[in-house]
Amino acid sequence: MANPTDQITLDPAAKKAALRMFTYGLYAIGVAHGEDRNMFTANWLTQVSFEPPLVSISVENDGHSIGLLRESGVFAISVFSTDQREQAGALGKRWKLRPDKIGDVRNRPGVTGCPVLEDAPGVVECRVIDQMAAGDSTVFLAEVIHAEVQGDAQPLTMQEAGFRHAG
Amino acid sequence: MANPTDQITLDPAAKKAALRMFTYGLYAIGVAHGEDRNMFTANWLTQVSFEPPLVSISVENDGHSIGLLRESGVFAISVFSTDQREQAGALGKRWKLRPDKIGDVRNRPGVTGCPVLEDAPGVVECRVIDQMAAGDSTVFLAEVIHAEVQGDAQPLTMQEAGFRHAG
Repeated sequence: MANPTDQITLDPAAKKAALRMFTYGLYAIGVAHGEDRNMFTANWLTQVSFEPPLVSISVENDGHSIGLLRESGVFAISVFSTDQREQAGALGKRWKLRPDKIGDVRNRPGVTGCPVLEDAPGVVECRVIDQMAAGDSTVFLAEVIHAEVQGDAQPLTMQEAGFRHAG
Repeated sequence: MANPTDQITLDPAAKKAALRMFTYGLYAIGVAHGEDRNMFTANWLTQVSFEPPLVSISVENDGHSIGLLRESGVFAISVFSTDQREQAGALGKRWKLRPDKIGDVRNRPGVTGCPVLEDAPGVVECRVIDQMAAGDSTVFLAEVIHAEVQGDAQPLTMQEAGFRHAG
């Protein structure tokens, strides 16, 4: 390689500022295993393949939901609408501080058994097919196995919500 | 599992519509190996870890750039600004139809040797640490090894650009 990477330096302030320029949406991720279920707010999520339709999501290793996701191998993505900023905030609280946070939002079981938001404009349900360790998190690769359009509300973006989860 | 996933059906129209509700930014990805270099427009990109700072990007298996990326193990992300819609369109053309498309944008070599946009508000350079096969694409996991802020222009979003690359 022409430029050995071990001589390159990283300025923490520039790293934080540049990574915060990335654009994100906001999604309610529903997980369930047996009687245990949870929803959490995520933004590190993207489609990654057209054929077959695949998405990836990064999930924190030290949260409550990753265990449920690993056990069941399925999860549901509900796209927050611009009217659902408050729900995005509620589901963004840490489970250990608010283990009953799912009660703060109107939800129903999706076809995978994972909770989905009643009022989200779109729902995508997924089956995990692979995963990759990624620092403090794990990137799950998942196939889209079901999808529903529930209305024409506009999707909520991270910038509109005024939230920050990058850097 | 309470809900076997093999009985779940996928409606292609709902799948496309729901996946198009995801929010994306637009980025110029620079790759280089030896004298060969290229830039392409990407949106399937996200941060995936705070510590260490990691990003993931999905790259098409049948494009020209994936080979350069695999050979060098480094790439550069330039965040398009709202003024750079035209450049985002130019770099979004397929390499085999326009192999000299990098000449359509003002660029310079980054610290990794990969091309970065002169006028992008932010630049993030990365070293690949892992990868995962993902259907028609490959998801690369990469550590942020260098970052620069080049101005305070607003990042361009997929929605503002009017482009579509999801569904």
